[in-house]
Amino acid sequence: MRKKKIPEATIRRLPVYLRELDELTRNRVQVTSSADLAGRTGFSSEQIRKDLTYFGAFGTRGVGYDTALLGSQIRRILGLSRGLKVALIGAGNLGTALARYSWETHKDVVIGAIFDADPAKVGERIAGLSVQPMSRLPEVVAENRIRVAVIAVPAVAAPGVLRQLTAAGVEAVLNFSPTKLSALGVFVQNLDLTMELQSLAYYASGEEEGAK
Amino acid sequence: MRKKKIPEATIRRLPVYLRELDELTRNRVQVTSSADLAGRTGFSSEQIRKDLTYFGAFGTRGVGYDTALLGSQIRRILGLSRGLKVALIGAGNLGTALARYSWETHKDVVIGAIFDADPAKVGERIAGLSVQPMSRLPEVVAENRIRVAVIAVPAVAAPGVLRQLTAAGVEAVLNFSPTKLSALGVFVQNLDLTMELQSLAYYASGEEEGAK
Repeated sequence: MRKKKIPEATIRRLPVYLRELDELTRNRVQVTSSADLAGRTGFSSEQIRKDLTYFGAFGTRGVGYDTALLGSQIRRILGLSRGLKVALIGAGNLGTALARYSWETHKDVVIGAIFDADPAKVGERIAGLSVQPMSRLPEVVAENRIRVAVIAVPAVAAPGVLRQLTAAGVEAVLNFSPTKLSALGVFVQNLDLTMELQSLAYYASGEEEGAK
Repeated sequence: MRKKKIPEATIRRLPVYLRELDELTRNRVQVTSSADLAGRTGFSSEQIRKDLTYFGAFGTRGVGYDTALLGSQIRRILGLSRGLKVALIGAGNLGTALARYSWETHKDVVIGAIFDADPAKVGERIAGLSVQPMSRLPEVVAENRIRVAVIAVPAVAAPGVLRQLTAAGVEAVLNFSPTKLSALGVFVQNLDLTMELQSLAYYASGEEEGAK
């Protein structure tokens, strides 16, 4: 696993910068500034400058950042320069939605293989891929040098899937199952959709009395 | 909309604390400490103490926090004390997965209504609810006092859906469509799954040369 020198919060902002830089590049805007990126992303320009200096992107004072160059630097830092091939575990509604998600429009991230433990799902075609049995996981992961996986299985099955992924050599996992997963030697990002909604509730005016 | 006195990063950590507090409460652990919560969540105990003081939860020095009381304080701050009823827009694969997600196990958050613009989907039953036409949105939102919604429609349809939600009085939106949405008077949390994977790539060892 790569050394985690850059703070996690910074790493999580890099894709946001990348999205804006790609849009600017598409629109043939060659130079941008931290102030411009601040306006587009909602982060402060101080924050943005600080984030970018972590990997030595300094821009030119009074000129700004080269849009395309900064984009390619961020891709390199994230390990996306040659595209990211991802394994998806779980071909249910969520897995199917994830596979069909607009990832085809994002050349950076591609679902390279889909697996399911249910024999009835194996062979089904989703987003151009044939669902494979879990027994093929080690082989497919090794052949395709897959290092990132998405878990979209029921909570009860998730810990076992994480063990299989770790054994197969996967190094980073996005877990959608509503259970907190962790394991040694693998980075797990738990994405609990209920928690997303719980924090969202704060921004909707309550009828409750305010807390003291 | 409620005043945003508490930093967004703190608000996003509160559901994580809540999950741990609920687990402790279920296990009949009556008192906890910031150090214990730190071990369970991965946040530092300083961070946790700072977050909790934002809403006046101070704990007792040498004793700690009353687990159940702190949990109910967090629910009150988030506006979850009486449960959160959410409208879901989009009854495709993602919408269906979200509706069936383990939200039934979370009494805090309930999908109260599902809508779809496709007449072929209207009337379909998902997770015990009948899919309703978009024309019924204003009425259902008003009747059920729904203030939070989830957008799970294709990118091209998302801006129109956000306008309809805002017009109906929804105040906070979780947007899963792969397009950045924003509107005056409504808090939008964009959850771009591609970006989640892009930042995850960093934690998988790359074969690329490291950035300078």
